[in-house]
Amino acid sequence: MTFLKNCWYAAAWDDEVTGTPLARTILDEPVVLFRTPDGRAAALEDRCCHRSLPLSMGRLVGETLRCGYHGLRFDAHGRCVQVPGQSTIPPGAGVRAFPLAERHGWVWIWTGDAEAADPALVPDWWWMDHPGWRPVRGGAPFHVEASYLLLNDNLLDLSHVAYVHAGSIGTGNVADFPIETGRGEDFVTMSRLVADSPAPPLYGEMGGFDGNVDRWQVAVSTLPAYNTVHAGCAPAGAGGADAPTERKVEFFNLNAMTPETATTTHYFYAHARSFALEDKAMDARFRVDFRRVFGEDVSILAAQQANIDRRPGASSIDINVDGPGLAFRRMLAQRIEAEA
Amino acid sequence: MTFLKNCWYAAAWDDEVTGTPLARTILDEPVVLFRTPDGRAAALEDRCCHRSLPLSMGRLVGETLRCGYHGLRFDAHGRCVQVPGQSTIPPGAGVRAFPLAERHGWVWIWTGDAEAADPALVPDWWWMDHPGWRPVRGGAPFHVEASYLLLNDNLLDLSHVAYVHAGSIGTGNVADFPIETGRGEDFVTMSRLVADSPAPPLYGEMGGFDGNVDRWQVAVSTLPAYNTVHAGCAPAGAGGADAPTERKVEFFNLNAMTPETATTTHYFYAHARSFALEDKAMDARFRVDFRRVFGEDVSILAAQQANIDRRPGASSIDINVDGPGLAFRRMLAQRIEAEA
Amino acid sequence: MTFLKNCWYAAAWDDEVTGTPLARTILDEPVVLFRTPDGRAAALEDRCCHRSLPLSMGRLVGETLRCGYHGLRFDAHGRCVQVPGQSTIPPGAGVRAFPLAERHGWVWIWTGDAEAADPALVPDWWWMDHPGWRPVRGGAPFHVEASYLLLNDNLLDLSHVAYVHAGSIGTGNVADFPIETGRGEDFVTMSRLVADSPAPPLYGEMGGFDGNVDRWQVAVSTLPAYNTVHAGCAPAGAGGADAPTERKVEFFNLNAMTPETATTTHYFYAHARSFALEDKAMDARFRVDFRRVFGEDVSILAAQQANIDRRPGASSIDINVDGPGLAFRRMLAQRIEAEA
Repeated sequence: MTFLKNCWYAAAWDDEVTGTPLARTILDEPVVLFRTPDGRAAALEDRCCHRSLPLSMGRLVGETLRCGYHGLRFDAHGRCVQVPGQSTIPPGAGVRAFPLAERHGWVWIWTGDAEAADPALVPDWWWMDHPGWRPVRGGAPFHVEASYLLLNDNLLDLSHVAYVHAGSIGTGNVADFPIETGRGEDFVTMSRLVADSPAPPLYGEMGGFDGNVDRWQVAVSTLPAYNTVHAGCAPAGAGGADAPTERKVEFFNLNAMTPETATTTHYFYAHARSFALEDKAMDARFRVDFRRVFGEDVSILAAQQANIDRRPGASSIDINVDGPGLAFRRMLAQRIEAEA
Repeated sequence: MTFLKNCWYAAAWDDEVTGTPLARTILDEPVVLFRTPDGRAAALEDRCCHRSLPLSMGRLVGETLRCGYHGLRFDAHGRCVQVPGQSTIPPGAGVRAFPLAERHGWVWIWTGDAEAADPALVPDWWWMDHPGWRPVRGGAPFHVEASYLLLNDNLLDLSHVAYVHAGSIGTGNVADFPIETGRGEDFVTMSRLVADSPAPPLYGEMGGFDGNVDRWQVAVSTLPAYNTVHAGCAPAGAGGADAPTERKVEFFNLNAMTPETATTTHYFYAHARSFALEDKAMDARFRVDFRRVFGEDVSILAAQQANIDRRPGASSIDINVDGPGLAFRRMLAQRIEAEA
Repeated sequence: MTFLKNCWYAAAWDDEVTGTPLARTILDEPVVLFRTPDGRAAALEDRCCHRSLPLSMGRLVGETLRCGYHGLRFDAHGRCVQVPGQSTIPPGAGVRAFPLAERHGWVWIWTGDAEAADPALVPDWWWMDHPGWRPVRGGAPFHVEASYLLLNDNLLDLSHVAYVHAGSIGTGNVADFPIETGRGEDFVTMSRLVADSPAPPLYGEMGGFDGNVDRWQVAVSTLPAYNTVHAGCAPAGAGGADAPTERKVEFFNLNAMTPETATTTHYFYAHARSFALEDKAMDARFRVDFRRVFGEDVSILAAQQANIDRRPGASSIDINVDGPGLAFRRMLAQRIEAEA
């Protein structure tokens, strides 16, 4: 498994990165994240260059991270700035530092060539910081026991809501409505309109709909591992996503899938909604109910990965709804090949 | 490790196979077992041909098993009969189905060439269904952390009762009595008579014997992995197995050893006794006491397998009581070679 | 990883070796330790030569260890002396026996050529048995999830007390004082004097010092895996280790590091002090407080080993305090090469 390297991945929520070092493996690299007293986040290789202790077992001393074994100190650039007991620093003493960017509530990490790290390439998830939208974070990242590619397949094929989430955001007939696949330079889209149908249970409770609704799903997966889903519903014939705010349930679901290893993933997500902006109970519903819903996916994905790992070369068939996911995988493979 | 394929293995107790899918690995294959509303048991490869989710995470819908991820439906023959969202079934869509047979309380699975699956080859354990015998099932199969071959060795060499089961079915002098080994086309027998000796504690309690007993052990192991033990005792000189029913403790212990992997085994067993047929307390004694006794073997076998795995090529010696087990292994190896 | 074989390793505390067999893996070998009724300790390969059951699952019968599966009996020399059910012992029946020596509270095992096993080579830790010193054993050996070489590095570089043990035996300025490295034929020494400095918290409590102290650390690591630390402190200017007994805290910490595998270690330690010989509360302090202190090392070492295992070839730098540890590793590597 090769990853696309010259890009940003979500490393942590901003409030996970504090004066207490945080260990997290990202793209198979052990990384320690911390925030210096001046408020800046830093990410270093989580292995002291001296005797390999994880630096995350050390502590912040001033603006430096001090190793918990022999006290070597490293600045936010990974430079070794002190070795106890001696006045000189051995040549080459230091650990890799990773560029970071903070945006929309996440700390993003650049895992490739540091000179190419351009903060403008962080995904523009402006709904998280806009007065017309109410953001709700999904909490601590899920540790998914599956490849981020399986997770992305999941988010690009929302027919699965009928089977995995039948009790919450699924209705039995979702798959009966066709999808449209779109492609851009670095993204793939999947669109579906479920017209004049019963509301899924969760949306029905949120919107108080009496009758049938028009429901839309517009998923966009962008290289390397970002996904947004614009979803919602409005009374049948009321205009769908263009219906007045007070008549519809509408939100963007923002997903950052960060490979921990080839077969495990840190899954960060948030929701930003356009309705009931001041409603704390609605905040709680998004926080709690979607955690449960996405937890269903996490279970499915782990079982799927385990079964794939048991018989790596097993043949499989594709069906219509796989189009966007397959297109994304091809696009990603080409980009990884080009980078290598 | 190659297994003998063209034969029946016990897959489950009949009451384990219901409308709720049951996942079980058999001969390294993931299998899902279920029973359709018409009462027939079915066994399919436990991996959807689409995206590899275990079908055991799905649910029965009518006579079909529906995948829990994207809703593909499979009939009891493994044919994909519906793909949500499209009117055609992709060519090749389907999963392997395994022939099953139900007999004597077990569901038997055929892991080789389906056309060769002949229900007449299921072992004839008629004691389980005969009015002159009282059957007691051994409960949920033991998950043995050892090869089925080690378990079969165990069941063909009953001298171990003196050491492993000293407090229940063993007495110290069992090994002092010689064994006879017999061979058939597809089976090996071990016979021993322990004459005029104290009764083992458990049999003593069951039979209320005052003095010494004659005890017999007749074990038969049949390819690929079936074993019966005809065992019991009667007062010394009373005729042994031919003693009148009311004077003896007599039962058949029926053992089905199904490889899960090369080094783990599903161990099913039952007992059918010829005495105290209506005695519920005796049922409980067979259910509870033998569970404990056989659990002692399970512990021994796991430790033995672990030690073998630590030093795979370590040399070993054979002793007299190994004769039947070695004969069985040779017979099985020849049959496996012939099949391959 | 090759180990030095022709030498003694600590196998157990003497009171761990009883009539109940004790299983312990030593240098990758499964070993069973037991004590026969005549009081002599014995160590055998923990695998029956018949069917590989760990002999530690058996029991002592007279002066023999009887296998828990088929009852084969082995004497303390590993000879098979009985096979139930037959009058002859198969040629070659037996298991390896390891020479043992008991000294200073430990049972020492010789893992190489038995004929070379010379009890005079057991380390002479006479403080454990001398009326002028009060010994306190460290309790059950720590199971360290790291190579014994990492543990030895730890014990030869006591600058780490400033970071790993800041709350007990460390003070921040230890590393500011230089070390001296010494070499013998089969040992390396590290010496440091921390002059006129605050007492570390634990020593301060033990000695009731009012002002600054002179503190000494003299560590000696001897092939293959023994280490002693002569440590203590006395009021500044009072003579250090030569101060009168009633004015100083002084002890020898004795460490035996026995490889379980290449990356795990049985860590035995004890302390013998020259002060407060009759003080039971001081005994408890040594028993409890040092257990906590050394447990901090155990955590560090496990994290260090895990990080090394993640990236086996990662480069590292050396610093001044590594001198003794590096010298020891070179000495050991040469000896291992010579032995091979």
